[in-house]
Amino acid sequence: MARLMAWSVEGIGEITPGMQIGDVIVEACGAEPNGPLRDNDVLVVTQKIVSKAENRLVAIDADDPLSHKQLVEDEAVRIVRRRGDLIITETKHGFVCANSGIDLSNVERGYAALLPLDSDRSARRIRDIVKAKLGVNVGVIISDTFGRPWRKGLTDVAIGVAGIAAVVDLRGTEDALGRVMQVTEVCVADELASAAELVMGKSEGIPVAIVRGADPSWFRDASMSEIVRPPSEDLFR
Amino acid sequence: MARLMAWSVEGIGEITPGMQIGDVIVEACGAEPNGPLRDNDVLVVTQKIVSKAENRLVAIDADDPLSHKQLVEDEAVRIVRRRGDLIITETKHGFVCANSGIDLSNVERGYAALLPLDSDRSARRIRDIVKAKLGVNVGVIISDTFGRPWRKGLTDVAIGVAGIAAVVDLRGTEDALGRVMQVTEVCVADELASAAELVMGKSEGIPVAIVRGADPSWFRDASMSEIVRPPSEDLFR
Repeated sequence: MARLMAWSVEGIGEITPGMQIGDVIVEACGAEPNGPLRDNDVLVVTQKIVSKAENRLVAIDADDPLSHKQLVEDEAVRIVRRRGDLIITETKHGFVCANSGIDLSNVERGYAALLPLDSDRSARRIRDIVKAKLGVNVGVIISDTFGRPWRKGLTDVAIGVAGIAAVVDLRGTEDALGRVMQVTEVCVADELASAAELVMGKSEGIPVAIVRGADPSWFRDASMSEIVRPPSEDLFR
Repeated sequence: MARLMAWSVEGIGEITPGMQIGDVIVEACGAEPNGPLRDNDVLVVTQKIVSKAENRLVAIDADDPLSHKQLVEDEAVRIVRRRGDLIITETKHGFVCANSGIDLSNVERGYAALLPLDSDRSARRIRDIVKAKLGVNVGVIISDTFGRPWRKGLTDVAIGVAGIAAVVDLRGTEDALGRVMQVTEVCVADELASAAELVMGKSEGIPVAIVRGADPSWFRDASMSEIVRPPSEDLFR
């Protein structure tokens, strides 16, 4: 029986520029009721605290609800759609999302948080600290909350990965009836980010979750290049 | 600490037309090592077995790889994009996906499985049987594997719900810093479907998973109309 467990990490306080998220997580996990971190656990860390730690905060005019719009354009390489105040952009990382991933919630009034410059690197740094301090190999996913076309509601997805596959390719394996599967590349990193979101909750401000039970074969070097679809292969921009 | 557990349900054999999925699940859950189903468990059931039970199977020419293409157009109300053999359609349900949700894997050779006519109703029927036979109130999600623009890899999403919210609206609640959140409607049904996919695996053909630990406030009457975005509000069709 395959079994997965996800839980929120308590006791992570306010994150300020210059802090090492890896150190903060190691400290918080010391008091974990589910025991210490283990090999092949996945740490899912929300983008917001990574952006804060990496000082990706920019002052805005708190009284002007549109004051971050110039930032949105600065962070974009392409405006994909625009309707009223809603701007869907492609970021320098290749992510397509609202407002270049910039948002104002859970950030001090008068500031906007930009996405990390390189979320894979942010994830690797956390993974390396956990490895150095606790001696365990974990996967790390930096997650963010994105909308999508055609379906209402937001879901959490991966914007950075380290030590855990982003996309797992099942093509060529046989299905349960012995037919060779045609196309089944599963984005396990996005699914892990979504599973973690279910225990973090948006309003409670819990920025880290642990997922235990991911398939051992998924733990390997990885990067967001597995997920980001090149514009030339994309039908929707 | 918020905590979620997901596990695959073993012992569900081949499903054939006319079977009641609810009965099959109740029987398989009798041998569950995690104990019997409880109130507020979520049953995630893959579309394929629902389509089989509801006899949504159509004979095709097994030697012609394009023989199901006419079916794809018959099941569509709109062709959203077409490139080579890839057709992205809007189905009668309002889902936008490849091939109108029709696929051939895990279906007997010579047949294609269409989406259930009304997946919310399929979910309700399972929920009602579990309630009648075991006396517990569970949420039921019918899941399918969809691609998406901009990001490679597929993820599992909800195509039918019963007894569990599709989208949870956190607008108006305060974030951790006391700011009122602007827009946070979370599609928990899609996130639950993704969490379940992680324990089902595509090639193993395990069609049912149980998720325990979803927020009690999410259990209520619901329907896919919470997720399906009307074309008039959509920027990508």
